[in-house]
Amino acid sequence: MPTGPRGPLSEVKALTFDVFGTVVDFRSSIIAEGHRLAEKHGFEVDWPAFADAWRAEYRPAMDRVMADESRWLNVDSIYREALDMLLEKFDIRGLTEEEKVELNLIWHRLEPWGDSVQGLERLRKRYILATLSNGNVRLLVDLARHAKLPWDVILSSEIARAYKPDPRTYQSAVDYLSLQPHEIMMVAAHQYDLRAAQSLGFRAAFVMRPLEHGPAVSVDLTIDDSFDVVANDMVDLARQLGL
Amino acid sequence: MPTGPRGPLSEVKALTFDVFGTVVDFRSSIIAEGHRLAEKHGFEVDWPAFADAWRAEYRPAMDRVMADESRWLNVDSIYREALDMLLEKFDIRGLTEEEKVELNLIWHRLEPWGDSVQGLERLRKRYILATLSNGNVRLLVDLARHAKLPWDVILSSEIARAYKPDPRTYQSAVDYLSLQPHEIMMVAAHQYDLRAAQSLGFRAAFVMRPLEHGPAVSVDLTIDDSFDVVANDMVDLARQLGL
Repeated sequence: MPTGPRGPLSEVKALTFDVFGTVVDFRSSIIAEGHRLAEKHGFEVDWPAFADAWRAEYRPAMDRVMADESRWLNVDSIYREALDMLLEKFDIRGLTEEEKVELNLIWHRLEPWGDSVQGLERLRKRYILATLSNGNVRLLVDLARHAKLPWDVILSSEIARAYKPDPRTYQSAVDYLSLQPHEIMMVAAHQYDLRAAQSLGFRAAFVMRPLEHGPAVSVDLTIDDSFDVVANDMVDLARQLGL
Repeated sequence: MPTGPRGPLSEVKALTFDVFGTVVDFRSSIIAEGHRLAEKHGFEVDWPAFADAWRAEYRPAMDRVMADESRWLNVDSIYREALDMLLEKFDIRGLTEEEKVELNLIWHRLEPWGDSVQGLERLRKRYILATLSNGNVRLLVDLARHAKLPWDVILSSEIARAYKPDPRTYQSAVDYLSLQPHEIMMVAAHQYDLRAAQSLGFRAAFVMRPLEHGPAVSVDLTIDDSFDVVANDMVDLARQLGL
């Protein structure tokens, strides 16, 4: 069992996971779905660009929600608003409302990275495994059923009514897990997420996902001394934790 | 697939479960734990009476919380307050604080009824399985890990910040599952719980647990025509739903 920069990791009782990008590979899944749809309809669309544009709408839309909390919008709705805009932008015409609903549901059927299920199964032997994602609860439930992700509990920004990196999201995990912050380790491929968790006292495991945005986009893989664990994938994380 | 009194059950997509009494057998588990503790310390205690008295404190304490919502008290804390009172009443002396904490955690290690795990595994093939319990999230997580209950999602009064039968608890399931009420079936051994869910439009499955309060106490097993399914246990429920 390693010791992190803030003390021994033997105190950790639960792991909270970012999901999109960290556990599941949204980009490849959307591109594959796009190709299936294009074949059926005879579209010609740059699906990698479409996938990237779709994901890019996510952060500014969440920021708008956080700027005006009187109107909570869940991630399903955020992606649907973005989809309607992108269908126009990419000149994709002729989809029925049912097909649009179905296309938006691709986020519920994303494939996990190849190491995720095995790594999580190992980690679950010792730790409570929780999502701590900006995805809404039903989205995370469907994803877990589809990808066989063995979560013990679904925690979500939708429950905390605040999107990461707002401290209320992380605080909700502290409260619902009935743990001290240093007993929880945030696991994410995104440094802003880890830093926000650390500022509440969580431990941090950085899982590198260099291909999150495809082979052409380089991802910030700077290794910060304050991270307790830096892992190549979930199986490596389990191994480093002695599992 | 049967048709309930309010229409075909083929629309049901998720089952929400009461847990204590319906899925797990708190009484036998507490009696067994009590005997282990008594042997260690040389106590003589009427453990069935102790278990019944402990459970009996639960409803009035929740009612007090609902009467003054400014002070939310989770079920772990409710049981702990009741435990301190009962240790005195049953003249159980000499337990350390650590032993009291451990005894209170018995609620996290209850045993399931013999049919529960098999029934839930079958039901999960078609339905999203959610808890909808007054237990707090961590309590339900520990219980699921201990008893191998295959929940897809932990929903709790602690998240809704209202104890059943308050309609807000059931409404929270509608919201987080992103379903219509008639797409959800409440599964419980307690009629008040089913009726509260029905009044929001849920379907209702009554699972009879005649031994919930021990062999000497008769339980209300009246079968109401408004229940969509009446089952002898979870395996019977799965069978009646064609699984």
